[in-house]
This record gives sequence, C-alpha cells and structure tokens, in this order.
Amino acid sequence: MIIILKQNPAPKQLEHLKDWIKKMGLDIHISEGKQSTILGLVGDTSVVDIDLIGAMEIVESVKRIQEPYKAANRKFHPDDTIIEFGGAKVGGGHFLMIAGPCSVETRPQILEIAQKVKEAGALALRGGAFKPRTSPYAFQGLAAEGVKLLLEAKKYTGLPIVTEIMDLSQLPLFDEIDVIQVGARNMQNFLLLKELGKIRKPILLKRGFSNTIQEFLMSAEYILAGGNTNVILCERGIRTIETATRNTLDLSAIPVIKEHSHLPVVVDPSHATGYAKYVKPMSFAAVAAGADGLMIEVHNNPSAALCDGQQSITPEAFARLAKGVEIIRDGIAKERDL
Amino acid sequence: MIIILKQNPAPKQLEHLKDWIKKMGLDIHISEGKQSTILGLVGDTSVVDIDLIGAMEIVESVKRIQEPYKAANRKFHPDDTIIEFGGAKVGGGHFLMIAGPCSVETRPQILEIAQKVKEAGALALRGGAFKPRTSPYAFQGLAAEGVKLLLEAKKYTGLPIVTEIMDLSQLPLFDEIDVIQVGARNMQNFLLLKELGKIRKPILLKRGFSNTIQEFLMSAEYILAGGNTNVILCERGIRTIETATRNTLDLSAIPVIKEHSHLPVVVDPSHATGYAKYVKPMSFAAVAAGADGLMIEVHNNPSAALCDGQQSITPEAFARLAKGVEIIRDGIAKERDL
Amino acid sequence: MIIILKQNPAPKQLEHLKDWIKKMGLDIHISEGKQSTILGLVGDTSVVDIDLIGAMEIVESVKRIQEPYKAANRKFHPDDTIIEFGGAKVGGGHFLMIAGPCSVETRPQILEIAQKVKEAGALALRGGAFKPRTSPYAFQGLAAEGVKLLLEAKKYTGLPIVTEIMDLSQLPLFDEIDVIQVGARNMQNFLLLKELGKIRKPILLKRGFSNTIQEFLMSAEYILAGGNTNVILCERGIRTIETATRNTLDLSAIPVIKEHSHLPVVVDPSHATGYAKYVKPMSFAAVAAGADGLMIEVHNNPSAALCDGQQSITPEAFARLAKGVEIIRDGIAKERDL
Amino acid sequence: MIIILKQNPAPKQLEHLKDWIKKMGLDIHISEGKQSTILGLVGDTSVVDIDLIGAMEIVESVKRIQEPYKAANRKFHPDDTIIEFGGAKVGGGHFLMIAGPCSVETRPQILEIAQKVKEAGALALRGGAFKPRTSPYAFQGLAAEGVKLLLEAKKYTGLPIVTEIMDLSQLPLFDEIDVIQVGARNMQNFLLLKELGKIRKPILLKRGFSNTIQEFLMSAEYILAGGNTNVILCERGIRTIETATRNTLDLSAIPVIKEHSHLPVVVDPSHATGYAKYVKPMSFAAVAAGADGLMIEVHNNPSAALCDGQQSITPEAFARLAKGVEIIRDGIAKERDL
Repeated sequence: MIIILKQNPAPKQLEHLKDWIKKMGLDIHISEGKQSTILGLVGDTSVVDIDLIGAMEIVESVKRIQEPYKAANRKFHPDDTIIEFGGAKVGGGHFLMIAGPCSVETRPQILEIAQKVKEAGALALRGGAFKPRTSPYAFQGLAAEGVKLLLEAKKYTGLPIVTEIMDLSQLPLFDEIDVIQVGARNMQNFLLLKELGKIRKPILLKRGFSNTIQEFLMSAEYILAGGNTNVILCERGIRTIETATRNTLDLSAIPVIKEHSHLPVVVDPSHATGYAKYVKPMSFAAVAAGADGLMIEVHNNPSAALCDGQQSITPEAFARLAKGVEIIRDGIAKERDL
Repeated sequence: MIIILKQNPAPKQLEHLKDWIKKMGLDIHISEGKQSTILGLVGDTSVVDIDLIGAMEIVESVKRIQEPYKAANRKFHPDDTIIEFGGAKVGGGHFLMIAGPCSVETRPQILEIAQKVKEAGALALRGGAFKPRTSPYAFQGLAAEGVKLLLEAKKYTGLPIVTEIMDLSQLPLFDEIDVIQVGARNMQNFLLLKELGKIRKPILLKRGFSNTIQEFLMSAEYILAGGNTNVILCERGIRTIETATRNTLDLSAIPVIKEHSHLPVVVDPSHATGYAKYVKPMSFAAVAAGADGLMIEVHNNPSAALCDGQQSITPEAFARLAKGVEIIRDGIAKERDL
Repeated sequence: MIIILKQNPAPKQLEHLKDWIKKMGLDIHISEGKQSTILGLVGDTSVVDIDLIGAMEIVESVKRIQEPYKAANRKFHPDDTIIEFGGAKVGGGHFLMIAGPCSVETRPQILEIAQKVKEAGALALRGGAFKPRTSPYAFQGLAAEGVKLLLEAKKYTGLPIVTEIMDLSQLPLFDEIDVIQVGARNMQNFLLLKELGKIRKPILLKRGFSNTIQEFLMSAEYILAGGNTNVILCERGIRTIETATRNTLDLSAIPVIKEHSHLPVVVDPSHATGYAKYVKPMSFAAVAAGADGLMIEVHNNPSAALCDGQQSITPEAFARLAKGVEIIRDGIAKERDL
Repeated sequence: MIIILKQNPAPKQLEHLKDWIKKMGLDIHISEGKQSTILGLVGDTSVVDIDLIGAMEIVESVKRIQEPYKAANRKFHPDDTIIEFGGAKVGGGHFLMIAGPCSVETRPQILEIAQKVKEAGALALRGGAFKPRTSPYAFQGLAAEGVKLLLEAKKYTGLPIVTEIMDLSQLPLFDEIDVIQVGARNMQNFLLLKELGKIRKPILLKRGFSNTIQEFLMSAEYILAGGNTNVILCERGIRTIETATRNTLDLSAIPVIKEHSHLPVVVDPSHATGYAKYVKPMSFAAVAAGADGLMIEVHNNPSAALCDGQQSITPEAFARLAKGVEIIRDGIAKERDL
C-alpha cells in the first residue's frame, strides 16, 4: 500500500499516522520528494482499511498494491483448490457439469430431467426451490416442497444437488443439499456469507451482475475467512450497455480469476445470455477459456417452464452440448501438451 | 402488453395461449398482418409473467406497455404520498433533511452530532449500527450497541432515527427505530422486502447501485403489496464508467420517479459522490431537480471517522448547506408561482 | 508518477529505465522495501507515456499522481477562463444560455425560433446543419444550406451561432460561425481536435457518451495544446444501465471539472434526458450544481421536427425555463454571500 | 413497427399520421382496444425514422419489430458473406488470422515481425501507421512513413496489409493497402463510413467500445448502403464496470451477429483484454464461440514497444497460439459433424 501525502503535512498528524500504521504490525518506507512525500507500507496490508487512511487530512491519495484478499489469493495458496461432493469433483483439472431446470415445478418434471441430464453426463443436478423474482406477482418457487423434490431426485439418480439459498432463515432446510448456491443478488449479503463460512458444505457463489472480479473475490474471502474453504465461483454475466443478451458473459474473468485465485470457476451461460440459442457456443467458449465447469439450464418442455423458459435447452440439446464440451476439452488438453 | 407472434403459429398453441390469457381476466385484440400477427392484451397486465410468454414457441417477442407495478404507480394513486414519523413529514411539498454520521462510533460522538445537526435544521438523525463492508476485515459497526446509542440520541434530541437493517434476523432490534433503511445492496433482497411489507413503519429504500428506476419501483412494490404504504425512495448513485466520483448521482431519476410514482424521493449525495467537497453542489442540484429530501453524512471529526470519512462534512458545513437548501427551495417555490 | 517494480528487477533493465526517465527531465526518488521497490517520479510527468512504462518487464504497475493534462489544469491556471464571442461571455460568473432547434429545417423555422429564443433571453443560437444519425436512411441535415440559414438568422437577430462540425473537410464552411461544436461521437476524433487547436474560434466540446471526465479533459488538452484556449466543455449525459432517460446526465461532472480545470462548463439537458418533460428540472439542477451555461433544444412545432422532436420544448416553455433559471441563479448568488 | 397511440387521439392528427405512413409505401393494421389503439406497420420499415413518430403528440410509444438494417441483415442475405483479398479469405468457414505490431516503428521491426507471423500461419499483417492516442503528448504513429514500411513488408512477405484510417483526408495514402481498418472511436464517424461505402476495398470495422451490436450493424449498413459489400466486423471489447481487463470482450456478440447478419466477425483479444497473458485463452474462446478470425498484437520486443506493449505477445507465443487455434478449430468441426 502506498500513501501519498499532501504537501507540507502537519508533523503531529504525520506522527499519528505512522504510529497507527506501526501498531498494525506494518513497516514504513518513506520517500520524500520536492512535491510530495510517499509512504510505502510493507507487510500484510489486507487488514488495513483504505477508506480510513484516505479520509485523513494530510493524505492526498492511497493506492493498494497487494490484493485485499488473502485466503482466496493464489499468492498464498499456489495450488488449485479441488472441491469434492457426492462423487463429483471440481477444480485442478476436474470438470463439473451441472444441469437442471431453473425451478423445480413438479415431481415428474424434476425426476425426468434429473434422469436425462445424468444420462447425458451431468455430475450434479441444479433446480431452484426459492426463486428471487423482480416482481412480487411472479412465481416464487415451491420453497420447502421444492427442496423435498430435489432430494427425491437425488435419491432416484444419485446426483448431488445444487440449489439456491435466499436468506439465512432457510439454512435448516439445506441440511441434505450438497452445494448451497448464493445468487448474484446476494453476492454482497455479507451476513449470509459469514454464516456460510461457519459450515463446511461447498458454496457456489455467483458473481453479482454489477460487481468487479475483485469484489467477487472479496465476497469469497468472507466465506473462506470463516473457515469454509469449499467455495466454487460462478461467472454469470454482468450488466452492460448491450441489450441483445440479458447480460454480458465476461469470459475474461476466467483467466483473471485463475491468475489471482486458486478457487474453481464455473460458468452459467444460460442466465448470462438469457437465450437457449446462445447457450451452446458460449459453453464451448467458456471451456476454451479454461472454465472448471458449466451450469446449464435444461427443461423437458422449455416453453411451458414456470420461469426463464427462454434460456432453457431440451435434454436432447444438452446431450449434444455435453458431447461437444468433451471434444473441446480434449482439444484444450492436446494444446497444453504441445 | 403486446405479443408479436411468429409467422404461421401452430393453431393449437395459439388457442392454448389465448385461453391462458383469458383465464387471467384479460381481453385480447388480434391484428393479423401479412408478416406477423399481433395480440394486444387489455386489462391489468401487472399479474402477467412476461418471461413465460416470451418462452413460448409461437412467440416472436413480447412488449409491455403498462408499467409492471401497480401500488407504486401514480396512474392509480395520482396524489403525492406524504409519510409522517416522529414529528417529521416527507412528500407532497414536505422536505425532509436527514443527517448524521456514516456509523455510530461512541456515545459522545453520536450525541454531539445529533445535537448539532438538529440545531442546523435536520429533522431526522441517521447513523449506521450494522455496516455492510466489502472486506471481512473492515469495521462492521457496533450492532445492537449502536442501535442503543441511536435511541439515546433520540431521547436526548427528540430527532427520529433512520438506520439500516442488513438481515431479517435483526428486525426485533428495530422496534423503537422510526425509519428502517434498506441499503443499496439489499434493494433486491426480496424476502426482506416482503417482511417489511408486513409492518407499518416507514421504510427508506435505497436504489441498488446498478438497478434501473423500474426495478427500483418494483422493489418498492414488494413492500407496498404487503400493505405497508410508507415507502421513501432514496437515489444514491449508480455505477457507471466514471471514476472521479464513487458513483454517478442520477438526478434525472427524480423527475422520472415523480412522473411514474407518488412516493417521496430523497437524495443521498454523500454516498453517491464519495467526497465531502461535492456534497454541497449536488445537494443544491437535487433540490432544484425536485427532491423531497436529502440524506447527508455529517461527522464531528471526518478524518477520524471509522468509516467513509472522505464523504462526511462537518456540522458547520452542514449548517451552511442547510441554509443554502432553504434558499434554493424558496427559489423553486417562486418559480412554481410564475 | 509512481512506478512499482517487480521483486528483484534485472539491474541492467533498471538502469535503462532510470536513464530514460532522467532524459525526460524528471527526478527519481527510490524507496526500497522488502517486497517491492518504488520509484517516485518528480517533475512534469504529463509528457510520460504511462503505457510504455507499464509494458516493461521489470515493472509491476505504474500509477499517476498528477493529472495527465496541463493546459486544461486548474493547478497551472487557477483563474476561471472567460470566453467571449458575438457579444456573449461564458465562464467566471458569466452565464451562457444557448437555444435553438436540433436541426435547421427551413428559413421560416430558424428565423422564427431565433427571434423567439432571443426575446426569451438566449445569448446564442444553436441549430444543426450536419446531423450525425445512427441510420444511413435518416435525415442528415441541410448541410451547407443549413449553415447559410443559420447565418441569415444571425444577421436577423444578432445572435451568435453555435453549430456542429462533423469532419475536417467541412471547416471552410464554418468561417462566419461563432462557435464550432464538436459532437459527443467526435470527442476523440483526435485529428479534428488538432486542427481546431490551430484556429482561434471558440470550440464547444461535448463529452463522449461513454468517456470519463479525465478523457474529456484530455480531449480539451488536444485543442489547448495547439494554442486555441477557447474551449467550452459541454456535459450531455453518459450511457449507463438506466433506460428511462436516453442517457444519464452526470451533474457531478460540474463540480469535478470546476475543481480540476479552469474551463467553462455548459450542460445540455435536452440530449441527455431525451424527453422535453425532463428538460426544466434538469436545467435547474445544472444551474444549482454550478454550470456556466445551458444548451436547450427549442422548436416551434416539436411534433413536426425533422429530428429529435421528443426532446424539444416550445419557445413558450423556453421563456418560462429561462425565467426560472434566473431565479435559481439569484438563489445561488445569495447562498454564496452567506 | 408498432405504434401505440395515446387514449383518444385527435382524429386530424391520426389521419395525418396514417397518410404519412402510407406515403412511405407501408400498410397499416389497426387494433382498437379499450385503453389504447395500436397501429401495426407492414412493409419495409427500415426507412422509417422512429424518432419522428415518437415525437408526435398522439403517440404513446413506438417499437420496432424488424431490425433497422437491411443490407447487413441475414434475413435478406441468408448465405455467409465471404470476403477475399490478397490471397486470404474470411467468412463462410474461412478463418482469417491477422497479426502484427500495434504500431509500425522501424523498418527492421516490421519486416522481422511480418516474416515471423507469416511463418507461424498469419494470413494478413496488421500494424498502425496512424495511432489515435488519448494524450496529445503520446506517440502518434509514423503516418505516411508507416504506410510505406507496411507496403515494404507486404512486398517482402506477400502478406496483405490491414491498417487503420483516422480521417477521410488520409484516404489517398491507402491505395495499395488491402484492408482499411476503422477504429472503435470512429465506428460512428458517419461521413467516413459513407466515403468507405464508395470504394470496393474490404473494410475492417471495429465495434465502438460503448456501442450495442445493433449500432455496430447500423454502422456496417452505412458502408453497405453505399455499395461496398466487403465489411468485416471486429469485436474488441466494451467498456464495463470491470477494471481487471482494459475492456470486457463480449464473445456473445459472435453468435448474436451470426444470427442477425451474414458478415464475417473477427475478434481482437489483445485490445479487449489489454494484457498479453489473457490473449491466448480469449483467442481460444473466440474460436470456440464461432469467430471467423482473430487479430493478434505481436511484437518482437514487447517491453520496448512504442505503444501498447503490455498487450503484445512475442512471435514465439503467437506461433504456439496459432497451433492451438487449429486444434480448437478441428474440435469445433468435429462437433459440427456429430
């Protein structure tokens, strides 16, 4: 961290600042120029509150050099994190294909889709029981009943379950769920993240639709800081000026995250693009960019889906997509061996 | 709502669609062209799930004409809503000045600021007890202790209290709080909104930093739909490509909201700009654009504030600002009488 | 400028870097820490190409402390620039009201509007002869004929003329035009800016709809660096996630620009919001935020306008707006004298 | 196109509107509902100025159903456009690899890079002679001298040349250049586009960094409408809230453009990401998403490059990348044959 002081800082305030920095266990390197004095902070600056320093009267500006996250940082954990649950693995070369409907609707629906995506190669079943909807008048999910149906589908197919939590109060219902998903709108629900840091179940954390990668990793840090090291990151598109797709899938986030963090990254092209027709090419692109997995919306009857049917593909289309993904993965592996 | 069908829609599916629309109590006007058939839906379309229709195979696209919100809609409630609490009023010509520190730090701090902002003309005291922070290592607020200190300040000055809730589980602590604030990051925490719809306390709902005005009004609708009609909207800036200010204060939102909704709108220039030096001009601009109130961060010692000191002004600067606001309000009133 | 080096930089490359910096007339302050070495550059760093340094192998990152513009910088020109043309002044307390139609359509149209906006208090007439349109099939302006009509209106009313240039090749047509406008889409047409730096006519430079304030000032710097000191900046909204207005008017840009630059700033609420109904409140807000002028679209028959009628107000509405602006300006003056 | 009228439209104005529509050769289908009357326009609506209609007093809103571009529209040109120049082809299954330095610096530099990228499989050489730079003090390219060096490299290697034009006045210098590039900042320089529509040389049109895909295709339409059918589109990232990469590469634009247009699309991952380290994964992702080509910045000494060295890869890294691209392309071909 570098602190640039204003010209002629009040000596008393400067001493106060230096003492405060040293009390946090940091060393200070001072560079006095004609126009400005610069303090370089050496040590673990992730504990320093950059806003506090910036507010001081004698400070012109403060700039971080080190990332503000530690547990999520590849610098301190060079090896890829591999996360295991219900027979599936993700990260460190293990590819995780998650598939299923946007929301659980009926027993036959979820059982049929579960069976079909399993046959096509999915390693985990997704399905929403609690649905965050913009309108209070829209279908909000089957709630507890939906969780029960997901667990039936798990029993029936053996597939582990990924489903979204919307509020702390729902946590007891997730006891037998394998992976708890935190939705994009909850990425900065810090109390929820803290509680999820206290359990040991894998958390699939979706990127907020207007959050930077650094904020994304800071939210992962909340969970990791609590002791839960099982965090799977999920890129699902950001809000931009483009309107042809629901959001803009930020595939550059994959190499950026891989550089800065050891956590696995999966991609959700269904929510990102919002249209079934773009799911296959964007899945292939995600794999080619180095994603550790995909999360695909599959529905046996997309045009009758109770939510987001526009972006769901059929089980047949999914089977085809899954085969294509294998081909691309083979290519990527071959390239790595060049 | 207008539904544009694909060419030569399957007759069976078309019948199915028409039946489904009629079951919702809507009338249909059909316009058959050479290239496309258009269905015009007449009636209360706020209950229609636009995604469901868009997903149907025979549908090319769907477009809303009416707004998807009803309770928040000025069309159905032409008069300005006026909200009262603790002796203060907002809306319908009543201007609400809220002031106070970003976070409650100590008993003397909050009592001194409360007293000073009251003297300068504030009608309500703000202060954070629970602070959502990007980093798990940053100061997170005094929590229950902070709420207690705010209530002491209320007793001491008579000012009603505005403070932020971060999670449903904190609700019992807000019993004696006058206005519950929902922060920008919680604007789409739909379960929280639903619960706040069940009480009758005024809710100050902040716009999410990347949400449209329509989404903002849909979130207000969640609270209103539950029966709580006391919603104060707060514009606090959106995330844009500009980096000179923390966010971009969207003052056009004021006339837009005034056109579409009857709810009062206050503006928070402190969080929006992120710098004390821009708070005064943007406060004046907000008033000139028609805002029903302001929420200003005031700290007796900004450079020692435990959070967001950069954007806090001193009680003296606030007193000056409050006088300026009165002058601008007089001008606006004079202009209205032209 | 601060250069943060990677750990253990190659000594040869470090020497090369230091020599290169010194050759530009800059001093270097070195601060060697355990984890990183920091070079502080002292002197006029506006000539340094930050990208070049960032590309060097031994460099971790580079950060500017000083702004990259000099001629536009208030630090080096503390007094407000005042620009005069055709009897009008802008900047340093002089307020410039510009009004007129989006595009010049016919002789009677432009003469009538010119007369009416003059009576209502406008100090300059705007009107487009060359219209940049998204579609090749839309009306593109009267071109040379439009310029001629504007000059007739000037003769008729005495109002100086502001009109937009779209390409260098049109420059000869602008001989008798008082102020040359550079549109938002041309804000980074650097060759055009350079040529406009060679003349001495005032340039009204519009902010690009997705450009930062710093980029805006860098474009002004292109003109100023050529010797033309008559640059009027114009805020006209930026593209954001909000769709209720055409763009989002960034009024915070006013105090930000006033802090960093001595150039006058006018605001165009017509193009920014895209709707006549929002022009008045946003005009008042701009004035309250400290704008040096306004540019308002006025049409004698908005619904028959050949372009952008949606955002034009009538001459009557403009007269009312102009009176309101005076009232707000009086208020702002009174506040300043508090 | 659908026009939604306000309640009880003035009959005279309605007749006026209908006449005006019919004069453009369009049919009208009227649907009268209780709350609103809807006019459906049938025929070629690309000639209709949507703003004009929206400005009419009796009109509530207007919505396009058909795309506003015709020549660029796949509906009217179902087959992929294939563009040929200097022995290279792009589109319709032909993949175009363009490589070269950001800017031409010296004779040995451009000759060496040209030779090396040719050996590695590039089919065209890129290099900037005119460089648009944000700062007037930064290196602006070798201009005419740069064009000459590029033509020498063409003679030496046989590779066709792609280079950027910045202003109409430079056109005579581009006589022997094979492909004229229009940079992102010039995407809406409509006069330039019009002139380029008059020649028959291929144009590589870069997407503006804050323009939608529809605006991108409208700019292509400007060139096509003039009779030049040789337009190659280039996705190069858009400006978003993410700061870890220079821009956000919008790979979803590939399937979106492929759906709506017949024009070939190449991707520039170098400018989009701004960092050499992300060029390879994003190249592979672009190919997997269906891109018709890539444009890669290659420099023999990236850290001594006179511009944008940070994003350039070495000729060796390029050779490796080109091999990887072939592997991914094989995979995509295999998938297509499933």
